[in-house]
Parts: sequence; C-alpha cells; structure tokens
Amino acid sequence: MYGAIEAGGTKFRVAIGESPSLVADATIPTTDPETTIAAVIDFFGGHDLKAVGIAAFGPLDLDPASDTHGSITTTPKPGWSNTPLKNRIADALGVPVGIAVDVGGAALGERRWGAARDVDTFVYFTIGTGIGGGFFTGNRIHTGYGHPEMGHIVIAREPDDDFVGHCPFHGACFEGMAAGPAISARWGDRVANLHSREEVWDLEARYIAQAFRTVTYVLAPQRIIVGGGVLQHDGLLDLVRSHLSRELAGYGMAALAGSDLANYVVEPELGQDAGLIGAIAIAQDLVG
Amino acid sequence: MYGAIEAGGTKFRVAIGESPSLVADATIPTTDPETTIAAVIDFFGGHDLKAVGIAAFGPLDLDPASDTHGSITTTPKPGWSNTPLKNRIADALGVPVGIAVDVGGAALGERRWGAARDVDTFVYFTIGTGIGGGFFTGNRIHTGYGHPEMGHIVIAREPDDDFVGHCPFHGACFEGMAAGPAISARWGDRVANLHSREEVWDLEARYIAQAFRTVTYVLAPQRIIVGGGVLQHDGLLDLVRSHLSRELAGYGMAALAGSDLANYVVEPELGQDAGLIGAIAIAQDLVG
Repeated sequence: MYGAIEAGGTKFRVAIGESPSLVADATIPTTDPETTIAAVIDFFGGHDLKAVGIAAFGPLDLDPASDTHGSITTTPKPGWSNTPLKNRIADALGVPVGIAVDVGGAALGERRWGAARDVDTFVYFTIGTGIGGGFFTGNRIHTGYGHPEMGHIVIAREPDDDFVGHCPFHGACFEGMAAGPAISARWGDRVANLHSREEVWDLEARYIAQAFRTVTYVLAPQRIIVGGGVLQHDGLLDLVRSHLSRELAGYGMAALAGSDLANYVVEPELGQDAGLIGAIAIAQDLVG
Repeated sequence: MYGAIEAGGTKFRVAIGESPSLVADATIPTTDPETTIAAVIDFFGGHDLKAVGIAAFGPLDLDPASDTHGSITTTPKPGWSNTPLKNRIADALGVPVGIAVDVGGAALGERRWGAARDVDTFVYFTIGTGIGGGFFTGNRIHTGYGHPEMGHIVIAREPDDDFVGHCPFHGACFEGMAAGPAISARWGDRVANLHSREEVWDLEARYIAQAFRTVTYVLAPQRIIVGGGVLQHDGLLDLVRSHLSRELAGYGMAALAGSDLANYVVEPELGQDAGLIGAIAIAQDLVG
C-alpha cells in the first residue's frame, strides 16, 4: 500500500491505495502546520506503507540538492512559510516520501491513469481560485530552477475589456485576468451567478486561448488538459478551442487549428481526485 | 571526424570537426534544394565521417515515427517545402544523420561547449530577422508535438506604443513587435541607423522582458541565453535584465529579481558558430 497526501490551502486530503482505486481516505482542515501534520501522521499510523507521495500547494523547494527539499518556502498562508513538509512526514513514518507541486502531482496522475495515458509531453492547467500549470515531458514532471508558475504569464488585454487585473504582483497576468476572483471582480458578481451571461464566458475563453497559444508555442505539447472550478461552465471548453484556433492562425502545429483541437484541449479524467491519485503515482515511483 | 550542416534560409554552412574547433568549413548559398544539397554532399565527399548533424531552418518534421522525419515541411521559402533534407544527406553519404531545428542545435552547442555547460534546463533565444527559441531539459533538446515556435507567443502592447505589429500570422506577437523588421517598421529606419535613439532600445527591452517573464513562468529555466543581430546593440541586455526584474515583481523564482539576473540572462559563448558547432554535437550524439 502507498500513502497519498494532497496538501491544499484549506484542506489536506489523505488516502491509502495501490492504484487510482483508493481504499481509505480522509479530509483534514488546514490549520497550523503542527496540528495539521500531526493529524496526517495519525491517519497513516498503523498502516504498513511502502512509500508516501505528496502533491502540495507551493511554492515548494524542489531543488534535489537542497537541505530543505520538500519544504513550503514563502507562502502568504499564515504560519506555513518554511514548513519542512516532506521531511516531517518522512521522519514520522520512516518510509520514502516524494513531493511535487499540486498541479505537477495532478499531471502525473493524469499521465498514468487519466487523460494523458497516450502522450509523453503535455500540460495540465487548473483554473479556479488561482491558475496553475504543470508540464510533463521526458517521463517526469518538469522542474528547472523551481516549478513553473504558469498563472503569471503575460497576456494582452482584450480590446473590449477595461478590467485592470487582480494579481497583486502582475496586475493583468493570466491569473489576474481569468481566475475566478478576477471574473467576479470584473463583472461584480459571484461566478455562480454569471452562468447565463454569454459575454462573460466568451471573454474568459479568449484569455484562456491566449494562454494556451503561448504554452503551445513555448512547449509544443501533445495535449493540454484543463480543469478547475471555472471550467465547470458548460460549453467553455468549446469556446476555448474555437478562440485557440483563431489565435494559432494556422501557424506552426498547424494541424491543431483544424479538427485535432478536440483531442488537444481536453478535460481531466480523474476530476477532483487527480492530485490525490497523482500522489499515489509519486509514491509508486519512489520504490517501483 | 563529424560533419556539420547549418541550414539557413540564405546560406548553408558546412564543416568538419570533432569538437568546437572546426578543421574545414565552407559556405554554400541557399538556392533550390537540388543544387544546394548537391553542393553540401560534394563538400563532404572524400572525408571519412562517422556521422553528420544538421541544424536547419524550419518548420521541420521531427516526429520520430514519421516516414518524413527530418524533412522541411511547409515553408514560405520557394521550392523548399517538403524537402527530405535529412534523408537525402543520409542516402548520399551512407552515415547516420541527425537533425534539429536551428535554435535547438545552437542550444545543444551552448550546452556542451558554451554558456550552458553548468545547467540542465535552459532556453536559447535568437532575436534577429525573426525570433526563435529552443528549450533544453532532461539532457536533450525539447520537442513535443513538434518544435517550439517561441517567437509567436503573446505579449501585451506597451502603453506608449501604437505599432500594429509585423507578423503575418499574429500581428503583435513577440516576433511581430520585437524582431528586426518590426523595429524598422515601427521607427521608420534601418536598425543600424537607430542605435543612438534610447527610446527604441528601452521599448525593445520591455518586449524582450515580457517574453522572458512568460518563459520564466512556463519553464522555470536555470538560464536564458540570448543572441542574434538585435542583441548587437550595446547595453540592450542590461536593459532587458532591469525590465525583467520589474516584470517578475519578486514573485516565484524570486531570487532572480535580485543580483542573479546577471547570471540568468546571458549572451551566447559560441556566437555566430553556435548552430554549426551544435550540429557537431548532434552528430556526436548519434554514435557516442
């Protein structure tokens, strides 16, 4: 059996399993690190685990040569900066522990058991309260100097939009223009109350298409998987495909501008469990 | 000895060597494929080669499973569309032949013998008549669905700029706003005549910094190497670093916003020979 932890800003989900079929799971509120991590360790106590995988909110120290590898670094979340998440779990349980940033873990889950089983190079996006992207290539989740922060790429303000942007760092970056809080701030209402307004979703699709064009030209991925709360709007993905076709304008990866887009921009298959299932895959890779 | 070919739109450069020190080289004008390729084969005739590497203008078919792997696909260059460049050279010389897109080859050269010897994940940009970017990670030049086309990513028009953009596909993409022809069209003069105008280079640096921010957040590279004709302007790289620091705004890869930028955005070490030397590296990898 493997242990899996999806460490989020509001809750930790923990599970035990050997595959995407989890045999036990629980949810632990994210309070202070001491309390939350103690509850995580308590959940796993008594189980005979081969390894544990963690898919965690970031930013994380993922430098393999670092003494603080697997720590949360500087986060606005009170009390959690410089928390050695991986090392505390490993010390308490005495088994190998692996860690990836949340979208990286979800990407690994989709690669092994979901919407990316048949491709080697793909991007996984989540668009909700924030925007994150993970990139998988060469049989691993990509990290370089650190992990990607794809929510903060440059996009161009659409001509019919005068919203200043909602990102405290970059203003009108992708996340600042297209995450849930940006949609709410622009239109003056909760996202849940905006589903009947076509102009909201056409503009949203244009920003997502801009970002996917950029990612397409930087990475030439074989697929883009996109989930998250904002994608719950019916028909948004078709709008994104349509605007992406226009954005690509037939240049490079030209076949994508045609019918292949339906197989290029797709929904996740593991849904809300992608991170947790990805953590099982992280654990597998440690001992497999 | 290895053979090296740098296949460009106006000239082919060919060389023989075992390392970055080339022992023989020649330049062949790019006319029609028959004539040009025959001259290339003629140059190598009589030499005992172990393998040949090609760094070529694209777009290229780089799908390893494709029958037309190593072909130039659809190019505006008259007569060159669907030219099986790799296979013609391989058939004529009877040795293994490898191929990469030009910026990918240059990236490989810089990795082995140049400005990226000490890093595993980096981006190589060339900014001149066009803009191209190659990405190296996991010990290889990255390709996915195809090769990247980093010149065509989204950037945001700067508030003091009303230039419509010069890209026939995307208008105001990175290449459409910041390549040499875009600079000339915006300011109404040849780039060579604009060196004394500070506003030209400050704006240019802002566009390059936008693109480097996006690439930083998508790839988290350890370094960005940037060369090409536009970078010949004294002081441009310092301006780029300064604007990139502002663009990153201390978010993610935060250390880069400080003094590390001088080691993050750097010039190539192999200069004009990066592609040709990269082709030697491509050949080495085939048999080494």
